[in-house]
Amino acid sequence: MTEQVKIPWEDRPKGSSDVIWRYSGNPIIGRYHIPSSNSIFNSAVVPFGDAYAGVFRCDNKAVQMNIHAGFSQDGIHWEIEHEPIEMQPGNTSMIESDYKYDPRVTFLEDRYWVTWCNGFHGPTIGLAYTYDFKEFFQCENAFLPFNRNGVLFPERINGRYAMLSRPSDNGHTPFGDIYISYSPDMKYWGEHRCVMKVSPFEQSAWQCTKIGAGPVPIRTDEGWLVFYHGVINTCNGFRYSMGAALLDLEDPSRLMYRTQPYLLAPAMSYELAGDVPNVLFPTAALCDMEKLVIYYGAADTVVGIAFGYLKEILDFTRSHSL
Amino acid sequence: MTEQVKIPWEDRPKGSSDVIWRYSGNPIIGRYHIPSSNSIFNSAVVPFGDAYAGVFRCDNKAVQMNIHAGFSQDGIHWEIEHEPIEMQPGNTSMIESDYKYDPRVTFLEDRYWVTWCNGFHGPTIGLAYTYDFKEFFQCENAFLPFNRNGVLFPERINGRYAMLSRPSDNGHTPFGDIYISYSPDMKYWGEHRCVMKVSPFEQSAWQCTKIGAGPVPIRTDEGWLVFYHGVINTCNGFRYSMGAALLDLEDPSRLMYRTQPYLLAPAMSYELAGDVPNVLFPTAALCDMEKLVIYYGAADTVVGIAFGYLKEILDFTRSHSL
Amino acid sequence: MTEQVKIPWEDRPKGSSDVIWRYSGNPIIGRYHIPSSNSIFNSAVVPFGDAYAGVFRCDNKAVQMNIHAGFSQDGIHWEIEHEPIEMQPGNTSMIESDYKYDPRVTFLEDRYWVTWCNGFHGPTIGLAYTYDFKEFFQCENAFLPFNRNGVLFPERINGRYAMLSRPSDNGHTPFGDIYISYSPDMKYWGEHRCVMKVSPFEQSAWQCTKIGAGPVPIRTDEGWLVFYHGVINTCNGFRYSMGAALLDLEDPSRLMYRTQPYLLAPAMSYELAGDVPNVLFPTAALCDMEKLVIYYGAADTVVGIAFGYLKEILDFTRSHSL
Amino acid sequence: MTEQVKIPWEDRPKGSSDVIWRYSGNPIIGRYHIPSSNSIFNSAVVPFGDAYAGVFRCDNKAVQMNIHAGFSQDGIHWEIEHEPIEMQPGNTSMIESDYKYDPRVTFLEDRYWVTWCNGFHGPTIGLAYTYDFKEFFQCENAFLPFNRNGVLFPERINGRYAMLSRPSDNGHTPFGDIYISYSPDMKYWGEHRCVMKVSPFEQSAWQCTKIGAGPVPIRTDEGWLVFYHGVINTCNGFRYSMGAALLDLEDPSRLMYRTQPYLLAPAMSYELAGDVPNVLFPTAALCDMEKLVIYYGAADTVVGIAFGYLKEILDFTRSHSL
Amino acid sequence: MTEQVKIPWEDRPKGSSDVIWRYSGNPIIGRYHIPSSNSIFNSAVVPFGDAYAGVFRCDNKAVQMNIHAGFSQDGIHWEIEHEPIEMQPGNTSMIESDYKYDPRVTFLEDRYWVTWCNGFHGPTIGLAYTYDFKEFFQCENAFLPFNRNGVLFPERINGRYAMLSRPSDNGHTPFGDIYISYSPDMKYWGEHRCVMKVSPFEQSAWQCTKIGAGPVPIRTDEGWLVFYHGVINTCNGFRYSMGAALLDLEDPSRLMYRTQPYLLAPAMSYELAGDVPNVLFPTAALCDMEKLVIYYGAADTVVGIAFGYLKEILDFTRSHSL
Amino acid sequence: MTEQVKIPWEDRPKGSSDVIWRYSGNPIIGRYHIPSSNSIFNSAVVPFGDAYAGVFRCDNKAVQMNIHAGFSQDGIHWEIEHEPIEMQPGNTSMIESDYKYDPRVTFLEDRYWVTWCNGFHGPTIGLAYTYDFKEFFQCENAFLPFNRNGVLFPERINGRYAMLSRPSDNGHTPFGDIYISYSPDMKYWGEHRCVMKVSPFEQSAWQCTKIGAGPVPIRTDEGWLVFYHGVINTCNGFRYSMGAALLDLEDPSRLMYRTQPYLLAPAMSYELAGDVPNVLFPTAALCDMEKLVIYYGAADTVVGIAFGYLKEILDFTRSHSL
Repeated sequence: MTEQVKIPWEDRPKGSSDVIWRYSGNPIIGRYHIPSSNSIFNSAVVPFGDAYAGVFRCDNKAVQMNIHAGFSQDGIHWEIEHEPIEMQPGNTSMIESDYKYDPRVTFLEDRYWVTWCNGFHGPTIGLAYTYDFKEFFQCENAFLPFNRNGVLFPERINGRYAMLSRPSDNGHTPFGDIYISYSPDMKYWGEHRCVMKVSPFEQSAWQCTKIGAGPVPIRTDEGWLVFYHGVINTCNGFRYSMGAALLDLEDPSRLMYRTQPYLLAPAMSYELAGDVPNVLFPTAALCDMEKLVIYYGAADTVVGIAFGYLKEILDFTRSHSL
Repeated sequence: MTEQVKIPWEDRPKGSSDVIWRYSGNPIIGRYHIPSSNSIFNSAVVPFGDAYAGVFRCDNKAVQMNIHAGFSQDGIHWEIEHEPIEMQPGNTSMIESDYKYDPRVTFLEDRYWVTWCNGFHGPTIGLAYTYDFKEFFQCENAFLPFNRNGVLFPERINGRYAMLSRPSDNGHTPFGDIYISYSPDMKYWGEHRCVMKVSPFEQSAWQCTKIGAGPVPIRTDEGWLVFYHGVINTCNGFRYSMGAALLDLEDPSRLMYRTQPYLLAPAMSYELAGDVPNVLFPTAALCDMEKLVIYYGAADTVVGIAFGYLKEILDFTRSHSL
Repeated sequence: MTEQVKIPWEDRPKGSSDVIWRYSGNPIIGRYHIPSSNSIFNSAVVPFGDAYAGVFRCDNKAVQMNIHAGFSQDGIHWEIEHEPIEMQPGNTSMIESDYKYDPRVTFLEDRYWVTWCNGFHGPTIGLAYTYDFKEFFQCENAFLPFNRNGVLFPERINGRYAMLSRPSDNGHTPFGDIYISYSPDMKYWGEHRCVMKVSPFEQSAWQCTKIGAGPVPIRTDEGWLVFYHGVINTCNGFRYSMGAALLDLEDPSRLMYRTQPYLLAPAMSYELAGDVPNVLFPTAALCDMEKLVIYYGAADTVVGIAFGYLKEILDFTRSHSL
Repeated sequence: MTEQVKIPWEDRPKGSSDVIWRYSGNPIIGRYHIPSSNSIFNSAVVPFGDAYAGVFRCDNKAVQMNIHAGFSQDGIHWEIEHEPIEMQPGNTSMIESDYKYDPRVTFLEDRYWVTWCNGFHGPTIGLAYTYDFKEFFQCENAFLPFNRNGVLFPERINGRYAMLSRPSDNGHTPFGDIYISYSPDMKYWGEHRCVMKVSPFEQSAWQCTKIGAGPVPIRTDEGWLVFYHGVINTCNGFRYSMGAALLDLEDPSRLMYRTQPYLLAPAMSYELAGDVPNVLFPTAALCDMEKLVIYYGAADTVVGIAFGYLKEILDFTRSHSL
Repeated sequence: MTEQVKIPWEDRPKGSSDVIWRYSGNPIIGRYHIPSSNSIFNSAVVPFGDAYAGVFRCDNKAVQMNIHAGFSQDGIHWEIEHEPIEMQPGNTSMIESDYKYDPRVTFLEDRYWVTWCNGFHGPTIGLAYTYDFKEFFQCENAFLPFNRNGVLFPERINGRYAMLSRPSDNGHTPFGDIYISYSPDMKYWGEHRCVMKVSPFEQSAWQCTKIGAGPVPIRTDEGWLVFYHGVINTCNGFRYSMGAALLDLEDPSRLMYRTQPYLLAPAMSYELAGDVPNVLFPTAALCDMEKLVIYYGAADTVVGIAFGYLKEILDFTRSHSL
Repeated sequence: MTEQVKIPWEDRPKGSSDVIWRYSGNPIIGRYHIPSSNSIFNSAVVPFGDAYAGVFRCDNKAVQMNIHAGFSQDGIHWEIEHEPIEMQPGNTSMIESDYKYDPRVTFLEDRYWVTWCNGFHGPTIGLAYTYDFKEFFQCENAFLPFNRNGVLFPERINGRYAMLSRPSDNGHTPFGDIYISYSPDMKYWGEHRCVMKVSPFEQSAWQCTKIGAGPVPIRTDEGWLVFYHGVINTCNGFRYSMGAALLDLEDPSRLMYRTQPYLLAPAMSYELAGDVPNVLFPTAALCDMEKLVIYYGAADTVVGIAFGYLKEILDFTRSHSL
């Protein structure tokens, strides 16, 4: 993902030695950013021309979940469409869905692919593409229900498309691991492999209940860098934090490293309180191969960003691996 | 409910287009407002002479739930009795109760009726009347357990008294719809009808888990205006928001309109944090047929108020109906 | 309930000293007794002219629950209608119901009243009357949901109709006590009192989970004799057994005696195995004031009967009271 | 499935008008049929040469679940291999599995395909083929976890392979509907469609909790005949019964008819008692286009068979459709 | 445990190769064996003089759980006291208990020790001794709640008393492993070690939910032979079966062998149906070092026995170890 | 616990009449107080020489729970070791543990004893001693799992060591009472008695779900003063508050007084929000017999302190007893 545009950035606070640090202007998108919204969070951004575009989860005031397109010059200040994306038929005519949430966006070959949690007899992985963030073409769902957190790789792996996902059940699911699946044509999927499981409570409790892939994997010399969320079930609810993993470049079902400590966990007031307290949920990243900015949903209510140096993150992931 | 006294009021904040907006001085009643209290919330107020009176839920520091009388000149600053209401026999001598909470007050014909959630082998609907908010006369419970959120209409419907209620079970009940029941004499109740059910998750998720009537219904030319709370079950607990419905004037079991979006949902710090985070629970309203003020419990800890114009609320309810 | 017809009878088996003993020809009604039935159980019978009539719970092979009329010369061999009872409007036109089950029948003044568990937004108490077991007139439901095991007294108490019931929730409810409610007119109900609660596990475990009234109460010199079911929750499911209680004649909300041991519990193969194993559920009784026969559902599949002497049952209830 | 060999048969019992009736010699395979077995049930049979072959679920006395090959001259008396099937690599080398259960066998083009519930990070659909029931070649799992009851159609539909399955979660799942998926190559699967959902409790309670396909669909002039199991959740556990459905020949995702009543439900002692009481679970059928025999597991312990006439079954399915 | 009296015996049925086989006269004690009993099961027997004595769990018809003394000439025909054991103070005066169940009896040095599940603010391990099965002296409970299946070793281990137990919670506990604890004086207990855990579902599912020690451990040349129950949680409830383990003679916290297959599991009608179906629960054994007889509770309703040769059991345990 | 060092202190705020008031500088220890920590809370302090020492629960950023030593001159500013305590063998060589949390420290005779919740096949009570807070010697666990909140008395009672604890199960346990146990040697434990149970909901709801001892009991003329936490289960999770009890000096299993109201409950922002909102968990106290300071964990995230006068606390406990 080499890119010309300058990614958002703020230097590490003085005195801090954290590998990842938050933007002082967080949250960058508030809950009432558009007239109809109850909350905007868990959203995806990508470079687009000499600026940025994105797909945003906007729950409206009926708490219906849908995804909206948005545009920005600097990656921090966003214009978000007031109406949800209206899908057109892509490789299928079956494009209805009960709800859409938690989008990711991947540029792949010639277009932008959007994946999201699609309401089709329960949650499964919806798939669409766009060239311009104006017209979107919805394709066959990738999997049977029940699945969430479908994230495409930004290039083919051995000639096939590849997707991470998190199969589970249809409620506030208390379990879930990360799998990879392949497709020759973005329609039929198979060769399912397990990539990462939750960790034993004693070894790394923040990720012992369920895990799911976050931003699109980033190709580095040392492997695919995958940020992911991990969940611990406290006596007062689920707490979502963020870690990182490195997958083999040739065979991304092969996990090489994975952070035992979290990289970032809920600690700011906009993460600790909101519609769902204690949720920090990464869904996108921009990287110029030196600096990196992560977009995350906070408390299922707003959007925040955080920064880090790619090299430091890779070093930390290798040196603090589970 | 025509009334002479001026209701509390604060104009809509500049730049806001919200149909309902909060008082800038919220919370108007803090958790330690009386010496014994752990929290004061979910309380009812009415015009009384040329001022206001009310019945307040005060949980003490043993977290025992009871109701107290209170008085105010302006509806914002309240003197609340330090001792709970002591009931005298009304149409029955069986007036003991394990606990009392979430009162509503209705002026009807010649007296003020209080309904509340009464601990009688589990929660059911307690009923009492008073002429002066000093002496209270407790009557037969309206229903068998298990029931909550009993709200009387402020006049007879076709000659009979009418009450909304929410039958359910005896714990942190995860379900519950609004029913109407009738009585010739405030003692025997029947003709139970279902008025409103929870909504499908896909259509209006904020009210998909359980719903319950809030303030006393307000007679308008367009129907009975009922504010109600709706609940969604997130992975970190229940979240209570407020909507509105219009019931037929002649047959209030007939639902005409009901807001798909919520009107107000937890978003301020005193609503997001407290003994039970994310609860916004309306229980009373004052209306001069032009302006309207709603009293609500916040986070099961304090009392807040919010304002709106009656006409705008009616228009919104009709135009944004589920 | 003085009656001319001879009630079914079989002497106590030699060597037995049981207060209640089963009929050797049990089950008297098999699961496929009518062409459409999957199971027939939990049914009610009464003297009718010089013979017997009854209302039977017949679940069909789609496992839809409904009630059917039936007739018998001897109380043992029954002709059951192949079609469910079709209700006509009684004191209401709202007579639809999602399902009907567990009927009881009470002769009261000039007609036979049927109560049952009626599917109306969940289980509640349905009410109807008939003069001839051909035409049935359905009335208003007695209570809000959620309620089961509504049983009318066979005469007015202090001028009002009286009904036992078991309020609870809407699933396989794990709790429930017996209440009494009164009505001036069979339409409006009130004056709710608690009659009996479940017993502490340590004192009488067979009735520690939930209890519910069975046959219509029998007036005796020593009080209203009420047979009831009690439930214990084992690690392999609910087990239903039968006990007896004596209520005060003048004030039947006053419990005088109640058997600590059960009178009859699942032990025969047709009680231990079937659609719901380990269920013995009494719903009707015939009594000539000397001898008594109890009708009960077995394993939610078939109907059985059991016998006893009234005097022995009363003696046992008083001498083995909880 | 035209076939030369005579299928097992026993005439309808005198006096019976049942569409399906049981074999008087049931169970045909007992729980200790091979030395290591704790139970043998939920198994599949097909014509094989001039006799029969099958794949049998044999839980051993450690209650490990596995599948064994077996052979029979008459379809009633079976020789079952004492050792489980040992798989060889088919279109994949990933052929390990934690457990195997509930097999189905489909003859398709040139070979026999076996599908089963395969333990791969939880239950999913395993797939293998054999030419001779001696050598078996395991292929890629068809789907991600969590899935059960994968059943292949016996011919291609519009050029693609087609499979029914029941996605759900990873425990004693209390929900589950029947889907269809397609594949060009028995490796990659997609175009997932929902075929049948559970029925509303009020309309057909025996199939209101979860449903799953049973034997391989049978091509008839009137559509694909699919026997399936339906489950109701009683207060004493799940009860599994059998119904039938007709799917469109050209587009089998289109449901045409589906029995509201069950065709067969647990009622015999070997169905009512065993390791899991009240389970009747159909997994195979033989049909000479006039007569039909169904193989089913009983109480998760033994194998039984039942008979019917194809024409009567089709008539019943159409005339008693939900 | 060398003993003079002849233990009950019946030869292995012809054609059987089972290591353990049932007595053809089972059940040896029926549910109504004494006048007050609802069920008699999970009981303990020992040689006593030239005959046998035992302690029996008799639930009465109020389903109160208590333990009764009993005597037998042949170990098969038992006289059981009609009244529960009345305890006298042993090393403590605190001898009240809410209930007593599932006793074991161990001869140790000079007296018979009884352990049982004692109701003391929930289940824990009760402890008493007797010389004559007439007078019983109750001691301090061995552990804090919540514990069940306390079983003493029949001799001191390295100078200290030793007890197996199964800590868990206070309901129908879905988990539980076997621990060993030591005491210098039968009053203070410590040095707790884990002996055996439940097995992984894939390796031995019959013992994957919870396990608990059964009869008193038997000293053999090859180690302490411990029969134990294992539980699997089916969709229709818990199923209890029996296995065997060998513990190190010097350090019995060291598990050497443990049967992967069960030795005996519910399969007879008196095991498959009763108050709690599918329970086979061993609690005592007699052994003349060649032959062995095991006493077990069946379906929480009756008592059965089964036979085996010690050498075969030891061989089987070693050769079929998990 | 007479002591020379001056305990931390801040006078009661003007206008306040609270018996316990918070330090204005709270929290005194933040979540990131040491480099590796995610949170520091539920920790224990004692006078040590002319200063203070303590044992701190530090969850690291992998959310592994462990205990660290720390030192302070004033009891407010703390130096906490960056590495967890490394245990050496005390009266046992079995000193491994899966995790350690919620320590208490008791000076007893000649050394400091540390108790904590020790991960040993689930939570149980770990025990160690130190002379210098540098070398720690771990002893046998006091009890079988599952137990938490083990608190030693600071002197022998009738010659034996005494410990309070809270047996329960192995998850987010929804129940639990306080027991006392005795030991002659800190190795073997017995004579278990129940000290305090949860209160009925109607009488004191803040302590109706579970309770557990907090700081080491303080000997006063009026009895052992025990601060404890109580929990109520709201629809949005557990809420932990603090009360006080007085136990008999000679027989501390005898409860004399116990506060019906709480003394302190979550109300400040650092108590209402954090990793586990609404937790106020006392674990240590310093007392010069006139003034008293309590250390408590807040929101499972930070450490706070609060002050009071011993005499006022004793008076309040006696005068507001349940």
